[in-house]
Amino acid sequence: METIVGKQSIQFQQSPHIVSGASIVGKKEGEGPLGKLFDQIEEDPMVGQNTWEEAESALQKKAAKLAMEKAGPSYSSVRYLFAGDLLGQLIATSFGLMDLQIPLFGLYGACSTIGEALMLGAMTVQGGYSENVLALTSSHFGSAEKQFRFPLEYGGQRPLAATWTVTGSGAFVLAPSGGKARISGATPGKVVDYGVKDSLNMGACMAPAACDTICQHLEDFGRTPADYDHIITGDLGSVGQTILLDLARKRGYDLSEQHLDCGMLIYDAEAQDTHAGGSGCGCSAVTLAAYILPKIETNQWKRILFVPTGALLSTVSFNEGQSVPGIAHAVVIEHC
Amino acid sequence: METIVGKQSIQFQQSPHIVSGASIVGKKEGEGPLGKLFDQIEEDPMVGQNTWEEAESALQKKAAKLAMEKAGPSYSSVRYLFAGDLLGQLIATSFGLMDLQIPLFGLYGACSTIGEALMLGAMTVQGGYSENVLALTSSHFGSAEKQFRFPLEYGGQRPLAATWTVTGSGAFVLAPSGGKARISGATPGKVVDYGVKDSLNMGACMAPAACDTICQHLEDFGRTPADYDHIITGDLGSVGQTILLDLARKRGYDLSEQHLDCGMLIYDAEAQDTHAGGSGCGCSAVTLAAYILPKIETNQWKRILFVPTGALLSTVSFNEGQSVPGIAHAVVIEHC
Repeated sequence: METIVGKQSIQFQQSPHIVSGASIVGKKEGEGPLGKLFDQIEEDPMVGQNTWEEAESALQKKAAKLAMEKAGPSYSSVRYLFAGDLLGQLIATSFGLMDLQIPLFGLYGACSTIGEALMLGAMTVQGGYSENVLALTSSHFGSAEKQFRFPLEYGGQRPLAATWTVTGSGAFVLAPSGGKARISGATPGKVVDYGVKDSLNMGACMAPAACDTICQHLEDFGRTPADYDHIITGDLGSVGQTILLDLARKRGYDLSEQHLDCGMLIYDAEAQDTHAGGSGCGCSAVTLAAYILPKIETNQWKRILFVPTGALLSTVSFNEGQSVPGIAHAVVIEHC
Repeated sequence: METIVGKQSIQFQQSPHIVSGASIVGKKEGEGPLGKLFDQIEEDPMVGQNTWEEAESALQKKAAKLAMEKAGPSYSSVRYLFAGDLLGQLIATSFGLMDLQIPLFGLYGACSTIGEALMLGAMTVQGGYSENVLALTSSHFGSAEKQFRFPLEYGGQRPLAATWTVTGSGAFVLAPSGGKARISGATPGKVVDYGVKDSLNMGACMAPAACDTICQHLEDFGRTPADYDHIITGDLGSVGQTILLDLARKRGYDLSEQHLDCGMLIYDAEAQDTHAGGSGCGCSAVTLAAYILPKIETNQWKRILFVPTGALLSTVSFNEGQSVPGIAHAVVIEHC
């Protein structure tokens, strides 16, 4: 099979390996259904820092170091970082990773960023541009609410379609070999806009993009949903999931058997009062590191499609009455 | 020579070519020293739109289409976009490029973004992941002032060390062959922080990063400044230039013969009252497209080092008293 596949996909000929994954989360995530699986739970929402943004930076730094530590000494020399976050001008990333003194490719794909980071990281490793690279993202409930909605002190009411931004950072060391999981393919996504304007219903904003990328992926590779143990979106939540399944059905694909959503896995929506589920750059990253990757490494799942989803809004675009377009990047991860 | 060079550089074995470059700028840039070289000058600062942000999106869209048009029909199928801008959550990019319906890798490296886009684009082309890709960035004086400083209506005073954000977008089609310029190497940059906190003196914030990347590049490749016709930074301006030359001298490199700065080339600082020079994601991109690339294509310059520079601040990090770290990505462009 060729490297260039179909309309917009990539097949890796020498699949780069995910050597390690690390997850650091906040207290609420630690209390959720995946709580026991995370590497570290930070009880202090400020992570010992002075601001929400510095707290998020601290999470990134911890996750980066832990991923490198878990990879072991043979992978210690990480050459490039592929990283991003949700904050304007990526300040959680630039301040968080500065001390590592490793060249940085700053990325922004909203909550889809870990997908973008993993595929660019894999392209870099297979391309022979680097031995080891680190892909990571973060989000923080406090910094995200301040950035996108209201300061926490306002105590704003949240509609039921709203999601809860995950406090956490997930990091992954990619290398030409090692570990028990490999990235065998990727489908970078297009910006898709269905004209939805409700920033408190991001699942509805992102579902069309998720559908577009997943269906295009299946067409490009000539596969069906059954070729995957699971197709796992980032943070559509329960509202977005319904829309995705409906839209995919209209394009001839029944995803209901395979579909999972990190945003729905990470919290107990009822007990934790998180409404439609979790969201944020950290949501899919920590779920991949703590829950999905181990399933693949232990061969419980042979092949999955990991599809982080992003809502491309800012307070400026929202206040100017623009819609909230979505983007989704798909990465094929297989046991090896 | 190997693909992996020295501590942080890449040598392209089959140098991807820059098939075309397009530049669209605003009225002020059109009145500057490079005025006659730009492809299009937009007299209307709103580019027929309702907001500064939409105006910037319109510039990106025009530049993207023009670059593809200039590349010609054999390069019409662009597979991936590598793009970014200065605005929070990259709204100029996501809204500007949506209609192209091409998968998007959203990038953020502040004003260094066109360097990041060119190197990732080149890595993608040489890696065989795509035939043609498009690398582009934009900035807009109105949207940037609103994002980072004060709304224009305030009529704020600007200190002499301040730069003027370029209104413009530069776009480039990269492909395995074609055209008269090729990307032969790259040095992705690290985040460098000297603790400067003055967001109205971004040259001082970025100069240490420019120095770090340029010196590391020369060491990685075992070259001297004289191996380049010019070493061209993005938007240090006159204040940043002085600092760069001083810092580089301390590391044993005299850049004074070769150094140029896009921010100093694009405006007549005295006549146009732009103080230290131009800046913004668009500054180095349009200067590359309109001024630098033609010099290389016509073999007036055989080899240059293009080093866009970024100041990694946001209003949040600034207001929280953080410093303004810098980043610089270096790309080697040669005649072919």
